[in-house]
Amino acid sequence: MRKIITLAVLFTVSSFTYAQQTDSAVIRSIYDYTLTQSDCYKNLDYLCNKIGGRLSGSENAEKAVQYTKSVMENYDFDKVYLQEVMVPHWVRGEKEEGYFINKKTKTPVRICALGGSIATPKSGIQAQIIEVKDLDELKKLSKEKVKGKILFLNRPMNPKHIETFKAYSEAGYQRRDGARLASRYGAAGVIVRSLGFSNDPSPHTGAMNDTTEARVPAIAISPIDADKLSEELKKNPSLEFYYKTNCQTLPDAKSYNVIGEIKGSEFPDEIILVGGHLDSWDLAQGAHDDGAGCMQSIEVLRTFQKLGIKPKRTIRAVMFMNEENGTKGALKYAEEAKEKKLKHLAAIESDAGGFTPRGFGIDGAKEAMDKIASWKTLLDDYDLHELGPGGTGVDIGPLKAQGATLLGFRPDSQRYFDIHHSTADNFDRVSKRELELGAASMSALVYLIDKYGL
Amino acid sequence: MRKIITLAVLFTVSSFTYAQQTDSAVIRSIYDYTLTQSDCYKNLDYLCNKIGGRLSGSENAEKAVQYTKSVMENYDFDKVYLQEVMVPHWVRGEKEEGYFINKKTKTPVRICALGGSIATPKSGIQAQIIEVKDLDELKKLSKEKVKGKILFLNRPMNPKHIETFKAYSEAGYQRRDGARLASRYGAAGVIVRSLGFSNDPSPHTGAMNDTTEARVPAIAISPIDADKLSEELKKNPSLEFYYKTNCQTLPDAKSYNVIGEIKGSEFPDEIILVGGHLDSWDLAQGAHDDGAGCMQSIEVLRTFQKLGIKPKRTIRAVMFMNEENGTKGALKYAEEAKEKKLKHLAAIESDAGGFTPRGFGIDGAKEAMDKIASWKTLLDDYDLHELGPGGTGVDIGPLKAQGATLLGFRPDSQRYFDIHHSTADNFDRVSKRELELGAASMSALVYLIDKYGL
Repeated sequence: MRKIITLAVLFTVSSFTYAQQTDSAVIRSIYDYTLTQSDCYKNLDYLCNKIGGRLSGSENAEKAVQYTKSVMENYDFDKVYLQEVMVPHWVRGEKEEGYFINKKTKTPVRICALGGSIATPKSGIQAQIIEVKDLDELKKLSKEKVKGKILFLNRPMNPKHIETFKAYSEAGYQRRDGARLASRYGAAGVIVRSLGFSNDPSPHTGAMNDTTEARVPAIAISPIDADKLSEELKKNPSLEFYYKTNCQTLPDAKSYNVIGEIKGSEFPDEIILVGGHLDSWDLAQGAHDDGAGCMQSIEVLRTFQKLGIKPKRTIRAVMFMNEENGTKGALKYAEEAKEKKLKHLAAIESDAGGFTPRGFGIDGAKEAMDKIASWKTLLDDYDLHELGPGGTGVDIGPLKAQGATLLGFRPDSQRYFDIHHSTADNFDRVSKRELELGAASMSALVYLIDKYGL
Repeated sequence: MRKIITLAVLFTVSSFTYAQQTDSAVIRSIYDYTLTQSDCYKNLDYLCNKIGGRLSGSENAEKAVQYTKSVMENYDFDKVYLQEVMVPHWVRGEKEEGYFINKKTKTPVRICALGGSIATPKSGIQAQIIEVKDLDELKKLSKEKVKGKILFLNRPMNPKHIETFKAYSEAGYQRRDGARLASRYGAAGVIVRSLGFSNDPSPHTGAMNDTTEARVPAIAISPIDADKLSEELKKNPSLEFYYKTNCQTLPDAKSYNVIGEIKGSEFPDEIILVGGHLDSWDLAQGAHDDGAGCMQSIEVLRTFQKLGIKPKRTIRAVMFMNEENGTKGALKYAEEAKEKKLKHLAAIESDAGGFTPRGFGIDGAKEAMDKIASWKTLLDDYDLHELGPGGTGVDIGPLKAQGATLLGFRPDSQRYFDIHHSTADNFDRVSKRELELGAASMSALVYLIDKYGL
């Protein structure tokens, strides 16, 4: 921390006038600055290696709130503040244990409880397995057949999609609704194939929908182990699986969204928001998901400041709390924005990893889409070829009803599900240049939106 | 190996007729197949983890020749053969040792000899350092000032270039010509800043030009250590550096290019070549550079075969030997092609890493460029946005004079210089999907070139 403070203070602010420069020169200077003097990589290093995983309600989440607040205060942004919000507080407890038993041979399996799940009894549960590959297979099963057994949802993510998020959204119901479906069929528990590709050795956690209806303990196993288990079941359909989880849901906890802003010179009441989410799953450091997006968002404001670009509109960096298991921070932010009648011109979220940028997904009115498309030639030099309709972000979603044009930072998606919600999402998987290019692309877009409106 | 053979034999060949399908359907099937059933990742695993680094003339290079030959034979390509070529045989010898001495305190530094360098005397060399940031600084120095000292070439790669190869080509002279320049000034030795970005902790090796004139022992240190050494020199310009290297150049060795082909049905004498280089530096496994390109090239032929696409022209996969320190394999290949009056319609090289594809660089006649550009809409869906003039490949270069259109596979370049020629270029840095997407993009391009000519 001390180091960061010192550097920020020592840094010489340049202040030549950006109004006189062409857009392409300004964008070039944004990239030059970010690729040589940005702080996002070292700030992410601190968040990951000094704080680590930071699930809502945890001590680490509180540390992350205080850390990002102090980073922005040290940068001397115009305003830095916390927005209180009550968040769910689920804890994993002691490390889980799992194995399958085939003719008295126990084979250990790495497991992890899904976020929001109830725990097994202290003695664990042990039962036979019913494997299904998809919902149609499940529908064909009678309750009698499933009752008392462990439902095993084993639909792989489809590797044929070039955009991996498409495969994720197709297979995601297993994690989100698996426990509820298992409950409905009277199963004793549910094992979910992790949302990663088939060569992935790690179990991935993640949130479940509607935990009130999901009254069986839910775990994930890695894609590799899911394939292995499936093979074993072919040989011996009556093998049993044992697992023990120790998670629990504590009372809601007080937490915060962390907000920093640079005031607009002409239209201070028009807000351009850049954000990510500060909470992360507990299995790893939350480097790509979504420490990257938070540090890139802070970097956008810092870049404007250090380059002396005075925005006409207010640029606001928001670190949303609780995206992973409740989105309470996003809801609170939108609710308060509505109450205060804030005008969000645009909201940009970076929550798809700190990988090489490919463009932005847009959700907005036709005029806004057309205007953004007209900047294509300015952004093509930076490999931002994809500027069109697309997914944006869970945290900014509620601002659409308030008239904001939503934009989702879209990096290369190939490696995202190798690390998403698993033990692999650590700082060592982040490329400095890729992270910086993402920050620069966000700054360039904010610059254009600020200058030309939407 | 046994496993690979078994799988290849067991595989059922599909044989529906591709002529009746639209190009977009064929390309889709190429991607589907590659993303679900390709062997390139597991073949690369074997090359990296069972064989490893394979510098020309080494036992491992010979193993790699035999391995790739047997892989292609097991796939039952129409023809698989070796093309003999004599290659330089430089060996590193025992691990190098280096440190700087500042007021009697020795600080160890990770060093590596540059490829082709002579060794230090057995006792090593120790001398003061003359640091220069660029050639202009060097030109201003008198021979007297440099004589007997160690020249330290410390120009960083410029991080501002979006395309990292541009930064590489600007700073590359330090490695290629450093020892020659040092020799000319009468220096005792030369330390070169490695060709990686500033947060890189590893020294990178690589070839030098014209080793006959480069009569001083040359080493590289990591960018991090180069910055550190530079800082220390500011505090104490008379500090000394010690290093000891043990490399030597042995007599040229016999080696081979490895070639496999599928015979064309209509124009068997027209060749479409896909290739990479089989040799790699000795510090790591040569995973991205260029095991990836070799395994992708073999995969192109395998994909045609497994999908039952009968090419009109002959498709040839070439694993060139000795790209890294002599390009003797490439020269031999082109020489023999000329003698035999072979017609290479196109030559595609993959030697920029197994990262997410962005397109292809092209070097050819306007008509060929225009034809390739006309396929843009077919390739856009696969994020192959970059199809234009650009770098192609060292191994295929000599075929240009024989009329071939040259194409260089162009993957995302951001992480390449984090691993290039350093201890980091290992299989664990390769993403299965990224590697496969590269192979599929090469297959798609070969399919179009074969169908429409150039």
